[in-house]
Amino acid sequence: MTTAGGIEQSYRLVKPQMEALDGLLEELLTADVPCVDEMLKYAGRYSGKRLRPVLIFLIAEMCGGAGEAHVRLGAVVELIHMATLVHDDVLDRATTRRNHDSVNIRWNNKDAILLGDIMFARAIRLLVSIGNMHALDRLTGAVSIICEGEIQQNQLSGDPGVDFDTYRQIIERKTASLYAAGCELAALLAGADEALVQAFDRFGMSLGTAFQIIDDCLDLTGEEDVVGKSLGTDVRNGKMTLPLIHLLSRLDDQERAEIEALIRGDDCSPDDIARVRELLQVHGSVAHALGLARSYVEQSLATLRGLLPPRDFGVVEELAAFVLEREL
Amino acid sequence: MTTAGGIEQSYRLVKPQMEALDGLLEELLTADVPCVDEMLKYAGRYSGKRLRPVLIFLIAEMCGGAGEAHVRLGAVVELIHMATLVHDDVLDRATTRRNHDSVNIRWNNKDAILLGDIMFARAIRLLVSIGNMHALDRLTGAVSIICEGEIQQNQLSGDPGVDFDTYRQIIERKTASLYAAGCELAALLAGADEALVQAFDRFGMSLGTAFQIIDDCLDLTGEEDVVGKSLGTDVRNGKMTLPLIHLLSRLDDQERAEIEALIRGDDCSPDDIARVRELLQVHGSVAHALGLARSYVEQSLATLRGLLPPRDFGVVEELAAFVLEREL
Repeated sequence: MTTAGGIEQSYRLVKPQMEALDGLLEELLTADVPCVDEMLKYAGRYSGKRLRPVLIFLIAEMCGGAGEAHVRLGAVVELIHMATLVHDDVLDRATTRRNHDSVNIRWNNKDAILLGDIMFARAIRLLVSIGNMHALDRLTGAVSIICEGEIQQNQLSGDPGVDFDTYRQIIERKTASLYAAGCELAALLAGADEALVQAFDRFGMSLGTAFQIIDDCLDLTGEEDVVGKSLGTDVRNGKMTLPLIHLLSRLDDQERAEIEALIRGDDCSPDDIARVRELLQVHGSVAHALGLARSYVEQSLATLRGLLPPRDFGVVEELAAFVLEREL
Repeated sequence: MTTAGGIEQSYRLVKPQMEALDGLLEELLTADVPCVDEMLKYAGRYSGKRLRPVLIFLIAEMCGGAGEAHVRLGAVVELIHMATLVHDDVLDRATTRRNHDSVNIRWNNKDAILLGDIMFARAIRLLVSIGNMHALDRLTGAVSIICEGEIQQNQLSGDPGVDFDTYRQIIERKTASLYAAGCELAALLAGADEALVQAFDRFGMSLGTAFQIIDDCLDLTGEEDVVGKSLGTDVRNGKMTLPLIHLLSRLDDQERAEIEALIRGDDCSPDDIARVRELLQVHGSVAHALGLARSYVEQSLATLRGLLPPRDFGVVEELAAFVLEREL
């Protein structure tokens, strides 16, 4: 795998599309009602590295060229992603996002729910303007699947018995499905042949799964000001992620009972989080999870090997490396 | 205006479409994830008299015939309506809907938010299958406008200074916009000419406005088991509706201060609600609101007079009468 610094080069390759995306998102995040306008502009900050649009534009360039439809597709996917973050922060009672107050804190839960709804609706409206029925069907389907994954996750919160298969199903639904749809549609709208379109679909699913595993690791071991949100949220919310699933399988009865009580309970002090981090370190649980993320990334690359010319494959490798590099 | 009993006749006119709608909604309210499936089936109860679909089917019949596209349109509009009810009950902390626990009570706020999202996404996906770009644009636009109206309403909650113009803007956005879109599209998809399509759009806007005014009156003066939800919710949530706006304009300084304190405050006892009901009665505020609802209904009929043959106009009159009859 190549060095991760190369991601800058990937961004440069699609600079015109990224600038068009900025303009389009700015246009979409406005409203006639002044208070809604203020909220939409604030929520604009929820867009971070814009990894999903970059991926879409790069894939489009490899498959025949990124046009206006791709700029819109990138904005649709980014808006859907941002809308889910707005709702997630309500669901997780999160207070910080990208180092600022989350929308639910700056305003309140009610308005955050409605703002997320508006962002979903704006995304779908923009999607309509692309004029591709399959894209509409795929992405509206993805929104439904994302929410199903989240409900499944909520209903299992506080349950330390969640196993790897269930965890994988949940993160495929809540995160990877949007990556898969974005990658598939980027290729499709660029006119790629069926085999390549399908390969990019599978690529997105594996890469998105890796992305979520890394995200779950960062929640446990990241630095708060780098990750830009409150950490330890998953343990506090009783959400079983891969490192915790691995950890529980390695603990003796007494320690397992201790951690299971934290997952089941409502209270979780900073000391408790420190204790979990210590045990994760001792048992190599985060390293185990990162290893699995790495194998998902390799799987994602395997679906494209042989289908892309070496130069393009190199670009995809850089991107994949960047997803893993977030572990640092 | 004709007698209200005639609504039964209207339902009979579109019986095949109503049966097809039942089947389609049942099909849409299912999911692979068992807990989501259970929630969707439960939320199916949120569909009541199905006034919006009936309206759509009747208009379609007047404009050239109701086909499969109209059954889907009816299901889309009903699903969007149901999704907003699911989210509204979270926002309003409502406990009862159609005489059963609301979704947020039977499960919890988190899952209710996500269930609403899924229902929105299902609605849009079905809308895609109609294959009409204007319908997609109009209804996704309507979802955005509905949420903007709700945010505007939330941000003004607890503010007794809300005037009639602001109230009208809010209810046009949160309620009437969906009626207008449904009526316009019913005519459009049946092949009506532009003048008639526009007339049905305006008809829907006026009728929807009347509908919401009546709804706001019912919250203050209805019978709990007839309306099927907790009453007095608007006062408790500091939501200024038309009867309250009228009432405040009629009270002396001391009484006004008393009611304004209720609107501003967090606490509102059953005695407080009884006091508000008493004052509303004394000052004829509900009668005033119903009078205005009646004039909106007349306005809705005026947009169609001369454009429809007498028999069809009679059907529309029955429907309009039914909307007003809810006051009883």
